[in-house]
Amino acid sequence: MRSLEWFPLSLWKRIRLPYCHLAGKATCLLRATDTMSTQSPMRLHGSGPTVLLGPHQALALRGTFSLQQNPGSPSPGKKQNKESTITINCVTFPHPDTMPEQQLLKPTEWSYCDYFWADKKDPQGNGTMAGFEILLQKQLKGKQMQKEMSEFIRERIKIEEEYAKNLAKLSQNSLAAQEEGSLGEAWAQVKKSLADEAEVHLKFSSKLHSEVEKPLMNFRENFKKDMKKCDHHIADLRKQLASRYASVEKARKALTERQRDLEMKTQQLEIKLSNKTEEDIKKARRKSTQAGDDLMRCVDLYNQAQSKWFEEMVTTTLELERLEVERVEMIRQHLCQYTQLRHETDMFNQSTVEPVDQLLRKVDPAKDRELWVKEHKTGDIRPVDMEI
Amino acid sequence: MRSLEWFPLSLWKRIRLPYCHLAGKATCLLRATDTMSTQSPMRLHGSGPTVLLGPHQALALRGTFSLQQNPGSPSPGKKQNKESTITINCVTFPHPDTMPEQQLLKPTEWSYCDYFWADKKDPQGNGTMAGFEILLQKQLKGKQMQKEMSEFIRERIKIEEEYAKNLAKLSQNSLAAQEEGSLGEAWAQVKKSLADEAEVHLKFSSKLHSEVEKPLMNFRENFKKDMKKCDHHIADLRKQLASRYASVEKARKALTERQRDLEMKTQQLEIKLSNKTEEDIKKARRKSTQAGDDLMRCVDLYNQAQSKWFEEMVTTTLELERLEVERVEMIRQHLCQYTQLRHETDMFNQSTVEPVDQLLRKVDPAKDRELWVKEHKTGDIRPVDMEI
Repeated sequence: MRSLEWFPLSLWKRIRLPYCHLAGKATCLLRATDTMSTQSPMRLHGSGPTVLLGPHQALALRGTFSLQQNPGSPSPGKKQNKESTITINCVTFPHPDTMPEQQLLKPTEWSYCDYFWADKKDPQGNGTMAGFEILLQKQLKGKQMQKEMSEFIRERIKIEEEYAKNLAKLSQNSLAAQEEGSLGEAWAQVKKSLADEAEVHLKFSSKLHSEVEKPLMNFRENFKKDMKKCDHHIADLRKQLASRYASVEKARKALTERQRDLEMKTQQLEIKLSNKTEEDIKKARRKSTQAGDDLMRCVDLYNQAQSKWFEEMVTTTLELERLEVERVEMIRQHLCQYTQLRHETDMFNQSTVEPVDQLLRKVDPAKDRELWVKEHKTGDIRPVDMEI
Repeated sequence: MRSLEWFPLSLWKRIRLPYCHLAGKATCLLRATDTMSTQSPMRLHGSGPTVLLGPHQALALRGTFSLQQNPGSPSPGKKQNKESTITINCVTFPHPDTMPEQQLLKPTEWSYCDYFWADKKDPQGNGTMAGFEILLQKQLKGKQMQKEMSEFIRERIKIEEEYAKNLAKLSQNSLAAQEEGSLGEAWAQVKKSLADEAEVHLKFSSKLHSEVEKPLMNFRENFKKDMKKCDHHIADLRKQLASRYASVEKARKALTERQRDLEMKTQQLEIKLSNKTEEDIKKARRKSTQAGDDLMRCVDLYNQAQSKWFEEMVTTTLELERLEVERVEMIRQHLCQYTQLRHETDMFNQSTVEPVDQLLRKVDPAKDRELWVKEHKTGDIRPVDMEI
């Protein structure tokens, strides 16, 4: 069952398409994958053999169907098993000594789906951590980084608002308001330009809020919840794998016992021939065959579970990879928006000085004197000598 | 005595030169002025007649020396005095009804020296205010305006310092410091750019201080003290003028009495001829002549005082006018410096965004994934089916 509700069906197609390209040499597999990509994901496993999709894909790429032919052959000896595969934390890998060559699923992309198959020793030393867990932590950290960037921008906004507030307040200050004439006009424009600057910085802070801070903060509101679901789903599949591995071990032990029983009874038959013993051998052989069938069934179920886990691992890690690309692109885009706004702010700021410069060029002390003298003169009749 | 220590001698020459140009038609006056401009200002008044410089200059410009010829003629009748001149607050002006045409000293310049000869009714209604006082108040107000502009710039500096401090502090913030790869580098540059911005604004504030605020504040440290001296000097000259006007009035009254006494005694002589009376008339005539001489001397002293006041008025108002031009130019220049610094700040600010843009262009999610996967991968061996 798909627990990742945020994986739309169309996405599945997108995720699965790379397999088609990778599986160029194995056309039968390619066709099967292609067909399935149009079906509900739920039908991928279950009734069908694990051959079509799952751990064998990469092998299929090499055009060798060796392992696909193996499952049917009845050679369940522990020795052979040990030689060709090795099971670590209930996951079965090819044995290092007899490992067939594996080609990466996405050889040139350093894709998440290729590098996190093993578990990792916990840094604290106790227990292990699934490779998927590391990817999840990367996602959560990325989300946290994005949130912190948004918080950083929020702090910048506060600084801009404070700056704008102070500039606007100073602009209203009455200092030297009584300066007269053209100089008075230029001075008034100096003050007004501060209000203009304040306006520019306020606009900057407002745009920072709507175009940078908010998008960074709002992006994937349910991200953490989705990641948790994702985590649980993969963990559940690992638990199922562990449980089925235990069944395999139990069935293998039972088969060994049955085989030992059959062997013992066959030896007894050789020593003292009796009807009862022949009946016992028949019964023991039937039970041994049944135990063998049980083991085969358990291995089959185990392989189905591992295949399902593998499938979910590929699908989900590719989705995480896509989300990370999206996150980086999204942050990049909004930081570009930040520099764009900074750029515009500097440009608009420039323009607030222009009218001041214009009025400063018009400052004329002679003209100012004329205006002032006209208003304040007391009399232009000069005194003359007193006559006697 | 010159109380304006800050009037250098060379300045006197500069101030007086315009008279030479104005006095184009009156070459004798021109020569006299020219000569005097090379002498100590203190020798301008005193021994010489007030004819050479002073209230007559403008009349001299018209080429009529009428008033210069008058002082000698003995016609001290009040009636004639009233007809040709009028004395207001101890300053003697040509009578409106018989006023000779006066040309402005600096006709095209709206010069202070041409428009502040009369006193002005105090706005509060009680008393009058000298024209010079209005000019002084203009100067003091100008000085105050300049001081307030400096204070305004100081406030702007504080805002810039606060802004820079906040940007620098935010730049040190550890938010999203764990972002990795090329995106991490771009993010680190976003933070660094805030430190660069802070630096730009700090530089702006520092330059505002040294190149705008300080020069505006320091300009003419003793300006107010100098203006006070200037004020006292002109006021003293007005007091002397008032005192000499009182002397004139007293002498005029004494002359009137002596003339009445002489007239009475002459009438007595016509009625009863006696030696004693003839002796009395002689005495009375002598006293009357002496009173006339006294009056002439007082009028002469009054005219000298008025001439000195006139001279100081012209000199000092021209200096105030020069100072005002200097003030306006000086403020204009420093406000231009302000806009220049604002301009540079915007330019430098632009450049702080450039390295961020460069690194944002280099952000590459695939490269970042490669780096991260190389460091954190757990294993690229894919699981395979378990064999029985």
